[in-house]
Amino acid sequence: MQHIDYAPMVVIEQTTPMTADVYGGRAKCLQRLIRLNMPVPQTVALSFDAVLDIAKGNEPDLAQVLPHFGDNPLLSVRPSSASPDWGGPGAVLNIGLNDKTFPILKKKLGPSAACRLYLRFIHSYAVHVARLDADIFDVIDDPDEAAIQSALVAYEDEAEEPFPQDVARQLVDVLSSMARAWEGTTARLLRQAKGAPADAGLGLVIQAMALGVGQKECGSGVIQFASSGTGLAGIRGRYLSQSQGREALDPKARALYLTKDSRGPSLQERCPDVFDELIEHGKLARIRLREEMSIEFTVDAGKLAILDAVRINRSARAAVRIAVDLAADQVIPREDALMRVDPKALSELLHRQIAPDAKRTILAQGIAASPGAATGRVVFTANDAHAAAARGEAAVLVRRETGPEDIRGMHASVAVLTERGGITSHAAVIGRGIGVPCVVGASDIAVNPRKKTLMGLNRRVIREGDIVTIDGTAGQILAGEVETQEAGLDDSVSTLLSWADDVRDIGIRANADTPKDAVTAQRFNADGIGLCRSEHMFFEADRLTMMREVIFAENDEDRTSALERLLPLQRADFTEIFKVMDGRPVSIRLLDPPLHEFLPSDKAGLRDLAAALNLPMSTVTERVEALKEFNPMLGLRGVRLGITVPEIYEMQARAIFEAALDCGGGVRPEIMIPLVSAKREVEIVKTRIDGVAAAVRVERGDGFSYSLGVMVETPRAALRAGEIAMYCDFLSFGTNDLTQMTYGLSRDDAGRFMSSYVQQGVYEEDPFHKMDVEGVGELLELGARRGRKARKDVILSICGEHGGEPDAIRFVRERDFDYVSCSPFRVPVARLAAAQCVLAVKN
Amino acid sequence: MQHIDYAPMVVIEQTTPMTADVYGGRAKCLQRLIRLNMPVPQTVALSFDAVLDIAKGNEPDLAQVLPHFGDNPLLSVRPSSASPDWGGPGAVLNIGLNDKTFPILKKKLGPSAACRLYLRFIHSYAVHVARLDADIFDVIDDPDEAAIQSALVAYEDEAEEPFPQDVARQLVDVLSSMARAWEGTTARLLRQAKGAPADAGLGLVIQAMALGVGQKECGSGVIQFASSGTGLAGIRGRYLSQSQGREALDPKARALYLTKDSRGPSLQERCPDVFDELIEHGKLARIRLREEMSIEFTVDAGKLAILDAVRINRSARAAVRIAVDLAADQVIPREDALMRVDPKALSELLHRQIAPDAKRTILAQGIAASPGAATGRVVFTANDAHAAAARGEAAVLVRRETGPEDIRGMHASVAVLTERGGITSHAAVIGRGIGVPCVVGASDIAVNPRKKTLMGLNRRVIREGDIVTIDGTAGQILAGEVETQEAGLDDSVSTLLSWADDVRDIGIRANADTPKDAVTAQRFNADGIGLCRSEHMFFEADRLTMMREVIFAENDEDRTSALERLLPLQRADFTEIFKVMDGRPVSIRLLDPPLHEFLPSDKAGLRDLAAALNLPMSTVTERVEALKEFNPMLGLRGVRLGITVPEIYEMQARAIFEAALDCGGGVRPEIMIPLVSAKREVEIVKTRIDGVAAAVRVERGDGFSYSLGVMVETPRAALRAGEIAMYCDFLSFGTNDLTQMTYGLSRDDAGRFMSSYVQQGVYEEDPFHKMDVEGVGELLELGARRGRKARKDVILSICGEHGGEPDAIRFVRERDFDYVSCSPFRVPVARLAAAQCVLAVKN
Repeated sequence: MQHIDYAPMVVIEQTTPMTADVYGGRAKCLQRLIRLNMPVPQTVALSFDAVLDIAKGNEPDLAQVLPHFGDNPLLSVRPSSASPDWGGPGAVLNIGLNDKTFPILKKKLGPSAACRLYLRFIHSYAVHVARLDADIFDVIDDPDEAAIQSALVAYEDEAEEPFPQDVARQLVDVLSSMARAWEGTTARLLRQAKGAPADAGLGLVIQAMALGVGQKECGSGVIQFASSGTGLAGIRGRYLSQSQGREALDPKARALYLTKDSRGPSLQERCPDVFDELIEHGKLARIRLREEMSIEFTVDAGKLAILDAVRINRSARAAVRIAVDLAADQVIPREDALMRVDPKALSELLHRQIAPDAKRTILAQGIAASPGAATGRVVFTANDAHAAAARGEAAVLVRRETGPEDIRGMHASVAVLTERGGITSHAAVIGRGIGVPCVVGASDIAVNPRKKTLMGLNRRVIREGDIVTIDGTAGQILAGEVETQEAGLDDSVSTLLSWADDVRDIGIRANADTPKDAVTAQRFNADGIGLCRSEHMFFEADRLTMMREVIFAENDEDRTSALERLLPLQRADFTEIFKVMDGRPVSIRLLDPPLHEFLPSDKAGLRDLAAALNLPMSTVTERVEALKEFNPMLGLRGVRLGITVPEIYEMQARAIFEAALDCGGGVRPEIMIPLVSAKREVEIVKTRIDGVAAAVRVERGDGFSYSLGVMVETPRAALRAGEIAMYCDFLSFGTNDLTQMTYGLSRDDAGRFMSSYVQQGVYEEDPFHKMDVEGVGELLELGARRGRKARKDVILSICGEHGGEPDAIRFVRERDFDYVSCSPFRVPVARLAAAQCVLAVKN
Repeated sequence: MQHIDYAPMVVIEQTTPMTADVYGGRAKCLQRLIRLNMPVPQTVALSFDAVLDIAKGNEPDLAQVLPHFGDNPLLSVRPSSASPDWGGPGAVLNIGLNDKTFPILKKKLGPSAACRLYLRFIHSYAVHVARLDADIFDVIDDPDEAAIQSALVAYEDEAEEPFPQDVARQLVDVLSSMARAWEGTTARLLRQAKGAPADAGLGLVIQAMALGVGQKECGSGVIQFASSGTGLAGIRGRYLSQSQGREALDPKARALYLTKDSRGPSLQERCPDVFDELIEHGKLARIRLREEMSIEFTVDAGKLAILDAVRINRSARAAVRIAVDLAADQVIPREDALMRVDPKALSELLHRQIAPDAKRTILAQGIAASPGAATGRVVFTANDAHAAAARGEAAVLVRRETGPEDIRGMHASVAVLTERGGITSHAAVIGRGIGVPCVVGASDIAVNPRKKTLMGLNRRVIREGDIVTIDGTAGQILAGEVETQEAGLDDSVSTLLSWADDVRDIGIRANADTPKDAVTAQRFNADGIGLCRSEHMFFEADRLTMMREVIFAENDEDRTSALERLLPLQRADFTEIFKVMDGRPVSIRLLDPPLHEFLPSDKAGLRDLAAALNLPMSTVTERVEALKEFNPMLGLRGVRLGITVPEIYEMQARAIFEAALDCGGGVRPEIMIPLVSAKREVEIVKTRIDGVAAAVRVERGDGFSYSLGVMVETPRAALRAGEIAMYCDFLSFGTNDLTQMTYGLSRDDAGRFMSSYVQQGVYEEDPFHKMDVEGVGELLELGARRGRKARKDVILSICGEHGGEPDAIRFVRERDFDYVSCSPFRVPVARLAAAQCVLAVKN
């Protein structure tokens, strides 16, 4: 590599060596525009080092700079940091105006324009450089020379020194003011919050003013060639005669359209030559700068000057469209298009969102648990949600927390709000799974299910039937109906994702529990189902009763009989899922939750249950009570049920095998055992399931194959993955439970202090949201290594909320996992993130 | 080492090389008796290999054996396995009796004795060798020759062949019958249950009969020189004229005492020479065999023969006494005495036990959670236990499960029984801590607290006031009063433990929460307190109310005021504990449990609370409800409270520091932070506590020092021990919680399936009972290594139920831990186990 000594200050010319990490992005961009022969006024760039030196109090050597701008120059100074996102001091224009240059300008532009520029410079200098209060100056619409005099006096009174008349002095003061502003604590914190490194530097760009004000056609404007909102191609922007900077964009300004427009006059009509030239420059910039640029331009006596160009702002939707269009036009390779879209932004596109400029009356703030926005009437029970859905009304289900019995109600609602719970609470997981906007852990609110009221901020009470809007993307509960905009999943997204699929080398599956979920998984082109929670099927009303009969069976015979009635229903579910997935793999997790989750928790439910089972209420109450656990998460669930009540797993295995046969050849089901902590658990369950398979093969006279795996979700299973892998074909790390156990932290209870923990920096982020690489990650790594060492071909995956998180995907891809599995609605995000992992390593 | 070829069959002589792992323990012991010149009849030993060969169907080469026993020999065969505990086939006597030797014997012993012996041999051979039914023979008190003839006929009828007359045939059949019995499945399972390896071998010993029957003084007996029950020195045993084998021990036999006895005739009087000789042999055996032996002897026409000697059976108490006495007599070194006592047996001695031969009517079986036995009247609430104690009545507290509010009731009870819970449930931990017998997880019973009844096996109902006995050692609930015996903690135990203290190189501390516990810890000579759970002090009635005020405080001011009233009480507790411990270290764990544990769970309690706090019932109910957690074990507790409600830890730290100053110099408290999962938690709490220390130093004008440590009880804390150690002086691994989280298994809920899990061999043992070396152990090892690497002088320990478990002690000692801490009542066990670790490595 060639070594280049970069000058601290340099005139930008076509061959000037210029990199963004020395002079900043703006300087670099200007150099590229100059190289493209665009009419950029004379520009000098100050490097980060030069500016830092100024900030330290050393005066810059302007003798090197000023001569380049001729006699009596007027100048602008603009910031140029490595990234435009990091902010920086505002531009200062018209430097050089003083009592000596004012008359020259007056002669050139006329007194009115000259007065306006001089007064504007005095104001701007006073506020931004001398740090005076803006209101020491009178507001004057059409200044004359008297106004200038009174401004100069006001300045001198306040600053206790006369307004500087020396152009070098003015420039030095502007430069050092901007340099010091960059080093201020607030500015530093703000940009670090946006991802800037601690030592991020500031460059500055000094440019000869193209005035935009004067005798013939003068003015300034901004043009871009695609929509910031949609990314669709089309000229956008404004032009304002007799203006500078970004004045044309002021909504109050009487700016012109750029292209011919029925609504009013346009630049295209007013100055067709300038317009054509601008269009040509725009095309060239897009191709050569490989980006949709917004160009700042000035017309000076009919002559075009290009002052600056920046990447256009863009919504998530526009970002996708622009990237895809640039690649489609072969301006950039597809790989670049893939890298240019933030996977997290993609998830916004999958859901209806609050319109960006909609007015929000915030009732309460909670955890943004499932993205998207929806408006509806408040209901407090799953049944009421159903009733509302039956009437065709949009319902927002509000609960203290949700449980399995609420799942159908959630399906029937347009949004869900819970007082308790964290990012992986029941409501959050289900909400994401079915794509319903959801806010949880809204500890500001108080839900009173009996009175059917909800108290929000300022003790404002919301009653059943009141209309609210839930913003699951921002975690807000809003009063009344709020304007929303459509989901933005269009052809550009699917194009981008198809490119991502070509690139990625790790599988992306979906967590899908029902045929409906499976359809969503297929729609998002998941590689299969990585986690089908078989128990979710038991919560349908008719099955719930049978499941309860299983639980309450007095003897094996009763239990077997209840299970026999469940079998065809469960088989039908699996058949449908297999059919939907059309040959893509489906990994089914056997029954996992503690049995009491299937039991009612209130008096009415208990009464119903007693009636259904024909048992005295006292017996039912007692038995339900007996099934209660102190810490159900750590209790009799998962494989522990499989060992102690083996009939349930046997029924499930049979349903899976028979469904596979019913779908004809080609279905090779994957069966997953949850909550394993010892290899012997796997050994025992495997023996039983193999037995069921053998029996089904004989009964049906037909063969099939299947694979058996373990859900690694206890730390012990990760540590003992070597011996566990000996009994199974795949290990799927359940990072939700693994996180709970590694931290000793229940996801359902964490909501109560998680925000305080993250605010205090105790945890950098909610570990249920962003995978904890140091703790949980080490267990993943250990488990994966040991599993593979014991069994070279064992399939490794993660299933759980982290499966859709880009950092987690990178982490497991680097450790040679085969696939990740996440909520269907996160599949697109994961597909893109997985592709980016590959490309990031390649580059 | 010299290589010796052991003969498959060998005549035992003074110089015969003989090891227990080739010929078995009995053969080896006989060889030692022979070497000591004792009158042992001619003996041939068959090695394990030889017997295995016979079991496989190969006939032994008796030509090598029989000549050693002369013409017409009578022989016995006895089993000789590596350990007498493993069982084995019964001895067969009088082999060689047949129609040819019978007349010779008749001449020598007279017809009556000869007939008895022959008939006995025919019976024994028929049952044990030919496997015939015993009842084919008539029962005859005084057999004559006709009886023998009819027995021989009966034999031939049933066996379909004549009774074998050839001595070689008889011997081969006996040997192969015994060899095959050893290889049978039942025998194999039985001995494996007692710890025998799968390939444990059987040796056999063929001995010339010393008949014990005949003309002059003949007979047989057994003698030992110390009590099997107490271990105290003294001759025990019986002698029966005209008898063989162990007939003298039959309670119905008219046996003689051995020493002169007012209750009847004695061997000492009948045969003083034989008696003296026996005493001499006994003394010699004790000294040279270095063990208290039981000697089987025969008198044959006034001449003593020693047939066998075995270690005497011994109770736990006797084991200690014998070992200490042998060492005190310099028969064995103290180190051997230490190795000879099973630490687990020691724990029996600390508690009153059911008398070994007491009759038990078992009402139900549960988990043996806290050893010892006690009888009392059943009560169903902590208050009733108190009332009973006030009346001076022994109460047995029966609960579904216990919680912190039951602790005082447990103190007032003689025993505790819970329907639910496992080996580390609340009741179990507290029970062991205060030494109260406790049975938990008695899933056979059904407690109905409202009706105040308890249903046991066979639906037998126990009501309040009924008398039961709890056997916490066996895990049984027994009907009525059952005879118990005193705790056996005598001078021999303290002698043994003082020797253990000289040897051990790892500290043994006690878990002690109250001054009373501290006194127990001192009584058992703990090296300090390793875990003082500070919250246990809050459950006293007056403090509970203050604690509830802290929880319900509407603002910081109210909270501070309630904490200010708690401060002096907490300080007084710590002062007293420091005083009791008299300079030994005390490690205090800051508040750990979820706050709702301090709140009432029933209506009456809620009403009381509402009254005490002067709040409406609905408010109290709602707030209590809001504090409920799904999985309290994984919720807002431990350091999470310290971070979110810092005032509590600050008050506790202040109480500790002020107490230390109140006790004068020399107290250097250790403060432990519970449930850490991230280093930043430690950093924040450390800063606050250091702040409190600085404030107290200034206020008191006096200095003190303290150390700060972390309770490592989440897998993540173990994994991140390196960075956590940077902020603390010690790491104490809380193996209870660590086990819960590593397995994903709540100790309170595990009881419901743990026994099924252990029975099916899913877990080898209850991991809360015996530390899981593979999973939890790996985390301990990782944590210890990383902690030490980051901070060389960090103190490592475990506190938790495993701290008293010998295997766990060995495990952590090998990893260079500094101390273990366990329930006070397990401290003696731990002291001995720690010494054995050192000795086991030395040898």
